Amino acid sequence: MSATIHRIIPAGREPSLEPMMALVAGDMNQVNSVILTRMQSDIPLIPELAGHLIAGGGKRMRPMLTLACARLLDYSGARHHKLAACVEFIHTATLLHDDVVDGSDLRRGRRTANLIWGNPASVLVGDFLFSRSFELMVEDGSLKVLKILSNASAVIAEGEVNQLTAQRQVETSEERYLDIIGAKTAALFAAACRIAAVVAERPEPEELALDAYGRNLGIAFQLVDDAIDYSSDEETMGKGVGDDFRDGKVTLPVILAHARGDAVQKQFWRDAMHGHRITDEDLAHATRLLEDTGAIADTLARARHYGQRAIDSLGGFASGQAKTALTEAVEFAIARAY
Amino acid sequence: MSATIHRIIPAGREPSLEPMMALVAGDMNQVNSVILTRMQSDIPLIPELAGHLIAGGGKRMRPMLTLACARLLDYSGARHHKLAACVEFIHTATLLHDDVVDGSDLRRGRRTANLIWGNPASVLVGDFLFSRSFELMVEDGSLKVLKILSNASAVIAEGEVNQLTAQRQVETSEERYLDIIGAKTAALFAAACRIAAVVAERPEPEELALDAYGRNLGIAFQLVDDAIDYSSDEETMGKGVGDDFRDGKVTLPVILAHARGDAVQKQFWRDAMHGHRITDEDLAHATRLLEDTGAIADTLARARHYGQRAIDSLGGFASGQAKTALTEAVEFAIARAY
Repeated sequence: MSATIHRIIPAGREPSLEPMMALVAGDMNQVNSVILTRMQSDIPLIPELAGHLIAGGGKRMRPMLTLACARLLDYSGARHHKLAACVEFIHTATLLHDDVVDGSDLRRGRRTANLIWGNPASVLVGDFLFSRSFELMVEDGSLKVLKILSNASAVIAEGEVNQLTAQRQVETSEERYLDIIGAKTAALFAAACRIAAVVAERPEPEELALDAYGRNLGIAFQLVDDAIDYSSDEETMGKGVGDDFRDGKVTLPVILAHARGDAVQKQFWRDAMHGHRITDEDLAHATRLLEDTGAIADTLARARHYGQRAIDSLGGFASGQAKTALTEAVEFAIARAY
Repeated sequence: MSATIHRIIPAGREPSLEPMMALVAGDMNQVNSVILTRMQSDIPLIPELAGHLIAGGGKRMRPMLTLACARLLDYSGARHHKLAACVEFIHTATLLHDDVVDGSDLRRGRRTANLIWGNPASVLVGDFLFSRSFELMVEDGSLKVLKILSNASAVIAEGEVNQLTAQRQVETSEERYLDIIGAKTAALFAAACRIAAVVAERPEPEELALDAYGRNLGIAFQLVDDAIDYSSDEETMGKGVGDDFRDGKVTLPVILAHARGDAVQKQFWRDAMHGHRITDEDLAHATRLLEDTGAIADTLARARHYGQRAIDSLGGFASGQAKTALTEAVEFAIARAY
């Protein structure tokens, strides 16, 4: 349970995304240009709504990974700009639909599109971005890339449905939960990294190594998100603290605390996930149980386990600026919890 | 305004889809098998929800068109089975999302998926079918087909957003309305027909001729639907009579009646489209206005215009069973109104 990450950055400095952002800054300008051009439409509501989310302060984590992985492989072409934009469009489409599904009203510290323009517009603009993403892939013309991203899209949707059917079920197993986040979150991280190896025309083992890097990073990212929903402040999260709790979202901290709790505690979690424990006192009590059972600490230990696997999957690639930046991105993902 | 279709079937017999269904019956079994196999998932809710709609008595009009057009071109391969399934998956995904957007509770005479399983499940299973459709296309491997269908998907989504922003606006022009239905309905009809020419490796003029056939048929179909919403019974429509009226849907009959009406009538239509005229008496009054202004008759005249163009776009193809069936399908589309 005490897995730690072998940190590569000097003690005293906080891990950050800065090195990766600096590494791909020039490429990211190209990607942003594709995004802005290709989200246009004769129907003004489309760029208006899409732009709200796309311009809304996201980290562009997934396209950044495509770019950084391409840099790791010394890829010198330009195909990855369009494909990184595809990845961001798919991600944006799923966020629009997620916020409808969850009835969310806050994302990245701003009002959600569904709150401003309504659910119908969010559903349909999500569909547009998703279709546009496929149009962009077809323009690139690689059937291999199309296969990776269409498969990732289907897996994401399956993961979302799986999560929906597990909703409020406090007995959800850790295995099932890992399946869910492996699909809904990690599949796109994996695909974003893997397609870099395809455009760079690298052999399959390198494709699979980058896939593993992205997948493990994605799981680590989600687990840390799950933990800090109970411990962070609104500014850090861009959404309210305890939102998962009040929405009855069964995440790994809850699964562990429930599994380790006595009968009274189990009943508390069951009630909470069914929406009967939504006061600030209930949240404080939940946080105490999560601490007492070690559920938060062990969620983070699990996250470090996947983070370390992400880093180790890069073992076969040559050292250099890109590898260092990709490694520090994992450390950053973990460090957000501290 | 008195365009008529040059009927090819004997007087006394009603036009029907039977000849086209008989023509492609064997192929359709293959398509149904692909549909049933490929809508499966480890997440039980997916085939359950998708199956409700897919098995729910639809005519399979769009995949049938792919098959009939392939037959017109004497295509002897099997690629069109998978691609016809793609077309049906795209269509099913848009129906699932449409019913969420419209808050519909009845489709094809049955309760809608969103009513039974909720909006979130319908949104996510729609996303799954859409992604699965792209996976199937990628398996086929034709970039040309991928381009046609990904473009159609983006155009459909744009058309849906366009319709959303025109909602309840009784001043919507006929031009804009034709743009909307050209996108949301006719684009997939056009693509379904066109891809048959691609798999049969026919020259571009034949591709474009089939595209025109499908597009014009799709517009005719939608206009007839719009007309019979005011005149048919629930059994024929599979949804309630006057649903468009009560939902404030600005269709061509309303656009024409409003444009031709006096100030009092214009106010009636404006009120109605804003949901202030929803009684049976209001619907009866609306139907009377539609009759008096010739709005229904002229909507059907417009439909015949597009229907005739669909038929004439087949002029370059050799006569035979397939051409006859495709022609009669147009006559059927129109005849539903009488």
